[in-house]
Amino acid sequence: MTRVAIIGAGPSGLAQMRAFARARDAGATIPEIVCFEKQADWGGLWTLTWRTGLDASGEPVHGSMYRHLWSNGPKECLEFADYSFEEHFGRPIPSYPPRAVLRDYIAGRAEKSGFRDWIRFETVVRRVEPFGDGFTVISENLATGEEVTDDFDKVIVATGHFSTPNVPEFEGLADFPGRVLHAHDFRDARNFTGLDLLVVGASYSAEDVGLQCWKYGAKTVTMTWRSAPMGFNWPDRVDERPLVTRFEGDVAHFSDGSSKRFDAVLLCTGYRHHFPFMEESLRLRTRNRLYAPGLYKGVAWAANPNVFYLGMQDQWYTFTMFDAEAWYARDVILGRIALPGPDAMEADMAAWAAREAAVDGGYMAIDFQTAYVRELAHATDYPPFDLASAAASFKSWKRDKEASIVGYRDKAYPSPVTGTMAPVHHTPWADAMDDGMETFLAVRAAAE
Amino acid sequence: MTRVAIIGAGPSGLAQMRAFARARDAGATIPEIVCFEKQADWGGLWTLTWRTGLDASGEPVHGSMYRHLWSNGPKECLEFADYSFEEHFGRPIPSYPPRAVLRDYIAGRAEKSGFRDWIRFETVVRRVEPFGDGFTVISENLATGEEVTDDFDKVIVATGHFSTPNVPEFEGLADFPGRVLHAHDFRDARNFTGLDLLVVGASYSAEDVGLQCWKYGAKTVTMTWRSAPMGFNWPDRVDERPLVTRFEGDVAHFSDGSSKRFDAVLLCTGYRHHFPFMEESLRLRTRNRLYAPGLYKGVAWAANPNVFYLGMQDQWYTFTMFDAEAWYARDVILGRIALPGPDAMEADMAAWAAREAAVDGGYMAIDFQTAYVRELAHATDYPPFDLASAAASFKSWKRDKEASIVGYRDKAYPSPVTGTMAPVHHTPWADAMDDGMETFLAVRAAAE
Repeated sequence: MTRVAIIGAGPSGLAQMRAFARARDAGATIPEIVCFEKQADWGGLWTLTWRTGLDASGEPVHGSMYRHLWSNGPKECLEFADYSFEEHFGRPIPSYPPRAVLRDYIAGRAEKSGFRDWIRFETVVRRVEPFGDGFTVISENLATGEEVTDDFDKVIVATGHFSTPNVPEFEGLADFPGRVLHAHDFRDARNFTGLDLLVVGASYSAEDVGLQCWKYGAKTVTMTWRSAPMGFNWPDRVDERPLVTRFEGDVAHFSDGSSKRFDAVLLCTGYRHHFPFMEESLRLRTRNRLYAPGLYKGVAWAANPNVFYLGMQDQWYTFTMFDAEAWYARDVILGRIALPGPDAMEADMAAWAAREAAVDGGYMAIDFQTAYVRELAHATDYPPFDLASAAASFKSWKRDKEASIVGYRDKAYPSPVTGTMAPVHHTPWADAMDDGMETFLAVRAAAE
Repeated sequence: MTRVAIIGAGPSGLAQMRAFARARDAGATIPEIVCFEKQADWGGLWTLTWRTGLDASGEPVHGSMYRHLWSNGPKECLEFADYSFEEHFGRPIPSYPPRAVLRDYIAGRAEKSGFRDWIRFETVVRRVEPFGDGFTVISENLATGEEVTDDFDKVIVATGHFSTPNVPEFEGLADFPGRVLHAHDFRDARNFTGLDLLVVGASYSAEDVGLQCWKYGAKTVTMTWRSAPMGFNWPDRVDERPLVTRFEGDVAHFSDGSSKRFDAVLLCTGYRHHFPFMEESLRLRTRNRLYAPGLYKGVAWAANPNVFYLGMQDQWYTFTMFDAEAWYARDVILGRIALPGPDAMEADMAAWAAREAAVDGGYMAIDFQTAYVRELAHATDYPPFDLASAAASFKSWKRDKEASIVGYRDKAYPSPVTGTMAPVHHTPWADAMDDGMETFLAVRAAAE
């Protein structure tokens, strides 16, 4: 019997198991599947922990999740085609849910799929090596310290790429007397209440973490950019400056000649694709981009197409894209999709890479990833859904953000799965200090 | 030719290379030695970094070092018998040097030993497995991502045991709104100036980190103990309470029924012996104790005595003990010391374990480790030194601390190597805010 290893039980790994479970439920013969998950529960980075650095077992903490995180894109752009938000919650809910609500949604589909016993929790993969036509996987049970060596025919890497921080050096930072941390270790904006905070970066982490700190009372938030400012209409107490060039004690100097004293420095400088457990020849090496090199259809490792990587792209669609990839990988493994020879794979990858190279700006990037998700989803029996509607919602979302970075989360979008328009949330995001599921799902307050 | 792998170029690994270099310089034929060091320079945790969590390569940060760390024991109790402080600095220096001075001393001996080219810097060991009579070692060059597989006859683990934090769970800590960190991630006491700080723990980390925070202006420092309080004559603004039982928001509740609001929680809850790169059968499993199980003479892994572990004990003597162990391991590898059979090793380990079990309190622990260091050092050509004097200094030091936790670092001790009495430092520790080497070594101020 074919044996498949899935590494990680976060959104990508769960999508992969869902794909196999659906085939099984439809009567197909599926491989033996073993999922290795180093955390004690599924959900990947959607599982919040107060821990930073190394976890209770001495392993790097996987998650970069923080309290008070609300979705930074419409939930309609990441909805599962086979399990709508409406199905899970029993009614339509607003478009920008906080963390606990999204986690509940992910876990809900998984619970109903009947694959929990495929997962070895608290088990970390130490090493994947080619062995014959397949692979040797060495894993360790973190609770007992016991090592197990297994052979597999296929390996699917679903460990995500927002776990290993990219942390550059800055002149003088070694002598900065205040707290210095990467967004990976950010847990609660209230740590910075009353402080002058420098946020290094100009992408999603900087935008959202900076705004959280503003919302929870940072004295000032200064964001510093290398290539270009984000340029939103920031509220009072928030500003953007060109790149910090050096620190002198607790003073940061910027490339426009300005300087300012700070209490803390928060590095929102991105993440690294990091797979130290993969033998060198199997290891994806890429920055965060729309089309990672070496992955046929963005999924199959062309150099050894018994290895698959899920969700390794710069992500617009997230869950929806993981599903499309997981269904695709499943169908390759089940023999429903035949991979072409090396030259044809190379040509296809080159064509996608050329298309990626032509992308100029966010709107084109949305179109690129929409086309990518469409191609993969259409190659499988992934349920049809209104992808054009989701793409349109992404574009509206971008415009909403440009209009109001503080107010965009108060908008609502139609579901590409059910067609239902989302209700508007009972409280504007800027005033919603409680991110609990109960509060979010509460029926609209009487005052409304 | 025999090939020896040394993992780590901190104090223990450097001691091991020094031991081999001394034999080589005396005319002996020594094995080929390859030292794997994941950091860019030697010195182990004595190399200070502002980074926490994961380093620039995505590897766990090795060091637990912080700014303003001064030795918490007399330097005379860790002096190299073959390279005195007086030899390195050209004159006697005070007994409690800050970090940079100790690092300079360690690096100084290494520089003079001619083994830097044995070390592969920025190279992490991913896996050590038994192979035939020896071992396969898979390492990765972190700068290039290139993996190398080598065969070795002997493997010496010198990675220390103060790198992987032990981080217990506390009820309610998940909702504590302030900063929570382990001592491993503590870098600068000035992060806590003006704050109410809870320090969880009652051993060396809690004692020293808590005192640093007091020195640099924490509003209050509350230490909380599980087994017993440290019981020192703490200065104003510092107190000890029995174990925290739970958190409720930013309030900690203690087992004596008291409670207090805190801005931050610092977990000084120890470290784990953590060797995820060692195949299970080669992996030392121990808590922090005077005699780790399974190590013949505290050094040779009895189950496979081609593996050695250095410095894995609860440490009083530190550098001195690492030297004794390194000289011993070297002589086993050179065939100068013959290991007995398994039964005799077992009997010897049992005898040491029984002796450890009889230890009651710090003074007896000092005697235990003194005897241990003596036995190992005497079995080799490690230069004779006045170990009894060092042991006496340890006991004086304990009494000095009991007399004044703020003032003990102002005392001076005689060198067990040169016999010279250390000068008294020009500034009392509690007033010495600058921990730089230049300031420390400056000739006594005129005011004195």
